[in-house]
Amino acid sequence: MTDFAATKALFHLPEGMIYLDGNSLGALPLAADKAVGRTLRDEWGEMLITGWNRAGWMGMPMALGDRIGRLIGAEPGHVVMGDTLSIKVFQALAAGLDMRPDRRVILSDSGNFPTDLYMAEGLIKALDKGHELRIVAPEDVAGAITDEVAVLMLTEVDYRTGRLHDMADLTRRAHDAGVITVWDLAHSAGALPVDVAGAGADFAVGCTYKYLNGGPGAPAFIYVAPRHSAQTSTILSGWQGHDAPFDFDLGYRPNPGAERLRVGTPPILQMAALGAALDIWDHVDMGALRAQSMKLTDMFIEGVEATCPTLRLASPRDAGMRGSQVSFAFEDGYAAMQALIARGVIGDFRAPDIMRFGFTPLYVDEGDVQGAVDIIADVMGNALWDQPEYKIRSAVT
Amino acid sequence: MTDFAATKALFHLPEGMIYLDGNSLGALPLAADKAVGRTLRDEWGEMLITGWNRAGWMGMPMALGDRIGRLIGAEPGHVVMGDTLSIKVFQALAAGLDMRPDRRVILSDSGNFPTDLYMAEGLIKALDKGHELRIVAPEDVAGAITDEVAVLMLTEVDYRTGRLHDMADLTRRAHDAGVITVWDLAHSAGALPVDVAGAGADFAVGCTYKYLNGGPGAPAFIYVAPRHSAQTSTILSGWQGHDAPFDFDLGYRPNPGAERLRVGTPPILQMAALGAALDIWDHVDMGALRAQSMKLTDMFIEGVEATCPTLRLASPRDAGMRGSQVSFAFEDGYAAMQALIARGVIGDFRAPDIMRFGFTPLYVDEGDVQGAVDIIADVMGNALWDQPEYKIRSAVT
Repeated sequence: MTDFAATKALFHLPEGMIYLDGNSLGALPLAADKAVGRTLRDEWGEMLITGWNRAGWMGMPMALGDRIGRLIGAEPGHVVMGDTLSIKVFQALAAGLDMRPDRRVILSDSGNFPTDLYMAEGLIKALDKGHELRIVAPEDVAGAITDEVAVLMLTEVDYRTGRLHDMADLTRRAHDAGVITVWDLAHSAGALPVDVAGAGADFAVGCTYKYLNGGPGAPAFIYVAPRHSAQTSTILSGWQGHDAPFDFDLGYRPNPGAERLRVGTPPILQMAALGAALDIWDHVDMGALRAQSMKLTDMFIEGVEATCPTLRLASPRDAGMRGSQVSFAFEDGYAAMQALIARGVIGDFRAPDIMRFGFTPLYVDEGDVQGAVDIIADVMGNALWDQPEYKIRSAVT
Repeated sequence: MTDFAATKALFHLPEGMIYLDGNSLGALPLAADKAVGRTLRDEWGEMLITGWNRAGWMGMPMALGDRIGRLIGAEPGHVVMGDTLSIKVFQALAAGLDMRPDRRVILSDSGNFPTDLYMAEGLIKALDKGHELRIVAPEDVAGAITDEVAVLMLTEVDYRTGRLHDMADLTRRAHDAGVITVWDLAHSAGALPVDVAGAGADFAVGCTYKYLNGGPGAPAFIYVAPRHSAQTSTILSGWQGHDAPFDFDLGYRPNPGAERLRVGTPPILQMAALGAALDIWDHVDMGALRAQSMKLTDMFIEGVEATCPTLRLASPRDAGMRGSQVSFAFEDGYAAMQALIARGVIGDFRAPDIMRFGFTPLYVDEGDVQGAVDIIADVMGNALWDQPEYKIRSAVT
């Protein structure tokens, strides 16, 4: 059983802020500062180049990968850290297409995060073999899985609505049609229990700066099923994925296992921060996390709906059908979110009209939910958002 | 004029160590610790998601890019930070091939760093259009530039020997034959004055953890010439290179300029460290740096050759023909380097027989060179390397 009051004490949370955006950037683990400082001073500063051996930098992408692997149900040695989620999507898609050379369709849905679709577009254009990116509505995915499809690429939890795909069911349907699956776990890893091995997923990818609290720009991960790893093609065949990188051969020879999915020199400072975040995750029971997440999100929905009739629930009402976020649709959602932020309730806005709130049991508790509900009721009930300064949209958000 | 005693005082250098491996991993700027700590605590910790705007995280890849741009002679707005060097090579190569659709050869040389060649291999295999990676000896490059060649990809300074290519001359020859150039500046940026604009380079890439002192795993950079940026194809079409990333369109529309070469979420902690390193570089005169580098390397060659007849110079003798490193060939170079490291002189070894020493005027001075020469003379003159423990090769380094 996980004591969430105890985990909350391990994070820095700003005074007067109720932070409901850990699904975009997780909070700072108190230990991250020391961990990164140690890596800077005692490793980079003192060991310099010998840190790659002596401080174990070279092994970090696989060691951290295994710790994330526990959270997503991966077999040891099959989760590889590095790069960004976009790059990892590209690697998985290219490998998947290579496994189905006679098929020409990448199937995805309109609930996927855009960068996944963009990376597919770039790959398809470069390959120039007539591949098609077919984007259907989330509810139409199952019916669109045909033997034309080479790769099914889905984000398990919709970044806008929180709607949860059934990974096991869709993977089974995909495999029945001979389709390779690429699951994006950006809003799943650390949000709910995931079982990539149990579901039979072929590839999975994710980022570590959301629920996992690895910090801004923390590296991504990629999972490849053990049955594929020795045959996985590597379009991004960088030296760190070479079987013997320090032989400096002129020709590429992939690592025999999943480690071939490494590309370039890994970001040691970011990984030090991520390591501190995973020190907390190592002790979290994912079942308990899910139960607490469902409790918090149910409480939030109930509270908001009881006080804010103008907000329309945009997430599934059944907690079992959503991730760890709650979204409400509201025409002036951008201004409303700005007003909430001014009052210390931090969520975010996603076009066209989604107010999005993430619930991270590691550092968000019932008191935070009640506090957020009260402020939202005040802001919405008294139309406090209806002021010019809240309506000027920034280019970035 | 740059005061190199003053810059040396801005770095942490371990007691009793003469560090001649800044061409592999630069030393720790004293200010990096505070800069990264500030980013962690005051930005990530306090601002959380709003740091992307309020702390300017979103603009860092272009802002840092411009600061590196000054060191390599790039036009403002045309150097983009992010990812790793391998990824940036891949982007540049793919864009270059796309500009020469009727040609099938990528020309490189055997002095290129292997990951550049590996990335070309992966791209060629994936494109499956009969491209060829043609690798010639460094001295044969000029003669191998023909109208069959789509892209000439070279590392300006050879990572093993330090031999310097003539970027302006080879670029001119390439353009005369209609060839696109991709210059890897891994051992050039911060090592000597570079003038990508003056040379007319089409693309350039580099890393920031060597001479630039950005720290282990610091992000890479890519330069695209202004005449190409609006037409550059983007195989890695990630959301950060989209014209309006926060519109979350389902379709990709590249940024109109060089910023399209951004891919995923940038590594903020690594960039904070790099920023501290660039605070030093901002005040360095590159002409003075080059003069000091030539002085140090000449002094080292003279000292070693006077005392160690068994070491054979593997770098050009003419300082104008080499970067900021000196290499000596020695059959038992691996053991000899281990013995030197045990004595506090840190260089590195590159197969089959290269002992490599980097000279970084920002924190290596004449006293260090004399100290290193004395220790090398002792180790070589008395065969102190001829001990079993120095001969066991590690998998890494």
